[in-house]
Amino acid sequence: MSQFWSPGVRELTPYVPGEQPADQVIKLNTNENPYAPAPGVGKVLRDYATSHLRLYPDPASTALCQALAKTYEVPDDSVFVGNGSDEILAFAFQAFFRHGAPLDVPDITYSFYPVYARLYDIELRQHPLNAQWEVDLDALASAGDRSGIVFANPNAPTGHAHTLAALETLLRRVTDRVVLVDEAYVDFGAESAAPLTERYPNLLVIGTFSKSRSLAGIRLGYAIGSPELIEGLEHIKDSFNSYPVDRLAERAGIAALEDTEHFHACRDSVIATRERTRTRLEALGFHVLPSEANFLFAKHATLDGGQLFAGLRKRGILVRHFDKAGLSNFLRISIGTDDEMDTLIETLEVLCG
Amino acid sequence: MSQFWSPGVRELTPYVPGEQPADQVIKLNTNENPYAPAPGVGKVLRDYATSHLRLYPDPASTALCQALAKTYEVPDDSVFVGNGSDEILAFAFQAFFRHGAPLDVPDITYSFYPVYARLYDIELRQHPLNAQWEVDLDALASAGDRSGIVFANPNAPTGHAHTLAALETLLRRVTDRVVLVDEAYVDFGAESAAPLTERYPNLLVIGTFSKSRSLAGIRLGYAIGSPELIEGLEHIKDSFNSYPVDRLAERAGIAALEDTEHFHACRDSVIATRERTRTRLEALGFHVLPSEANFLFAKHATLDGGQLFAGLRKRGILVRHFDKAGLSNFLRISIGTDDEMDTLIETLEVLCG
Repeated sequence: MSQFWSPGVRELTPYVPGEQPADQVIKLNTNENPYAPAPGVGKVLRDYATSHLRLYPDPASTALCQALAKTYEVPDDSVFVGNGSDEILAFAFQAFFRHGAPLDVPDITYSFYPVYARLYDIELRQHPLNAQWEVDLDALASAGDRSGIVFANPNAPTGHAHTLAALETLLRRVTDRVVLVDEAYVDFGAESAAPLTERYPNLLVIGTFSKSRSLAGIRLGYAIGSPELIEGLEHIKDSFNSYPVDRLAERAGIAALEDTEHFHACRDSVIATRERTRTRLEALGFHVLPSEANFLFAKHATLDGGQLFAGLRKRGILVRHFDKAGLSNFLRISIGTDDEMDTLIETLEVLCG
Repeated sequence: MSQFWSPGVRELTPYVPGEQPADQVIKLNTNENPYAPAPGVGKVLRDYATSHLRLYPDPASTALCQALAKTYEVPDDSVFVGNGSDEILAFAFQAFFRHGAPLDVPDITYSFYPVYARLYDIELRQHPLNAQWEVDLDALASAGDRSGIVFANPNAPTGHAHTLAALETLLRRVTDRVVLVDEAYVDFGAESAAPLTERYPNLLVIGTFSKSRSLAGIRLGYAIGSPELIEGLEHIKDSFNSYPVDRLAERAGIAALEDTEHFHACRDSVIATRERTRTRLEALGFHVLPSEANFLFAKHATLDGGQLFAGLRKRGILVRHFDKAGLSNFLRISIGTDDEMDTLIETLEVLCG
């Protein structure tokens, strides 16, 4: 290791995102939306007075926060935005989870959480999913002295989402530390917990424009929570980078929020294609977990997950494979267009045949 | 303080950026460039296929790193990019300066450095500027056991820059820890230390597209250093946010780098206006420090800096005033267009008259 690095830097095990290939492939590996963002986003780019880029953005992204507050029907001071939900998750780990007690998380969930925990020297206490591959909220709530609780709802890579009533049962039991609900995939069939933030001051909901708003390329995420949680995030952000959200991202985000018709149409298409794909995968001998996200998590009755992954890859179709105990026979398949999913199914027919 | 915050969050004292007023004012307070970015940046926005925004960016921003490597004539693996140079400074503090010994910095320099030090629990050892308001490189080099050295060259808010020969004298003496040279303002008259990075593996040069490239609004910064330093930054970045540079920012940065003619024209105009403004400020009774940056640091022979700041502000002209011992009689004045500086001088004639 370099003598110049701070102690501990070598031991960091970075999150490895899905491949971003330059070549033409069917890309079903990073849960991107198959549809373009709202037309208003294109108009923002075409009409933007480029000379304004010489000026710094509004450090608080006030206009975007107001648009989010309106969308989620929460007060303006309950909203925070950042450079993707990943940046906000990092801020939240630092702002809320360094109490010298373990942080309770599911053992199968977004694999960036253990990376943040290591970056900020936070001990994790991992709880197995239940027999239905669901986040075990009762186990999370029962764990005792803790720094906080984090899980994704819907969870990744499994796709199951708890109801608001189930989340509220957890929130009634855990009031002393932050409960962070990562809603990256919430718009594809689950209910947002944002309305609960006004009653539970320890609930932080984090969302993204990368999935249901088709803006992964612009880097935009948000958090909704009580003003005291938002202020905690601001303390970290203002000690790190005054302006993480650029001028174009702010405008693009507002344009995306304004077009509810486009939002609903894309969401409905993804959901319809997901259920159509599920049926066809099951017909091919896959066990497919229920999903309220824009992906399916599926394993074949007899064929090896790693081999299917490699076979698809060789034929120009990228899905995600986690080489981890208990998961290695599964494929996580993002929902693309109907045409893309047809090609996937046809290719799997060859591989499974 | 909130019971939900991690210990220490309350004690963070965020960096306070200059105001970003919504109203029409003459804005000489955050060292932005008065000229628009290269025309190619506008073309990027107008021609961009918006549908591509549904996809994540290249996590390594390879194309932009290659364009920077070409510009600075360094190997591709000596370049790192981030969401503004502030983000890269934060990564560097975490990656390189946590060795349990003090970090040597000038006492008057970019005021974000003490904020990072507190965020990452790093002790600072502050060294006074010399009698000519210059960073005292000899004092920095002589301080003994340390975590590293950080300074801006040209320094802010003073404007003085050391020569490459002077930097090299420091680098010959300090070889065990990282020497970070923040070159936010280097293009307005100083020499970049980037060519030295191939000979000094502990030298990290950090730059920005916000000043000389007129892209403060797009959030783009870079670091140049040995592959082992770049790898250290990547370890932190990949544990924090896989994609801090968005698709449009990457393309805009490349377009800005490609237009050397525009770059030189804007730079030359800023330098000419700076020297013209210096002469006129001196005629009004100001003492003006030599500057190789896009700002001047000046104090009036008899009038109070705080009152001048307030008087200008009342008349719609924003400059920067630091309410800090030894600095409070100074104004830091960003270089605007000739017209803006004419208005500034006319207003100061009234206030000083």
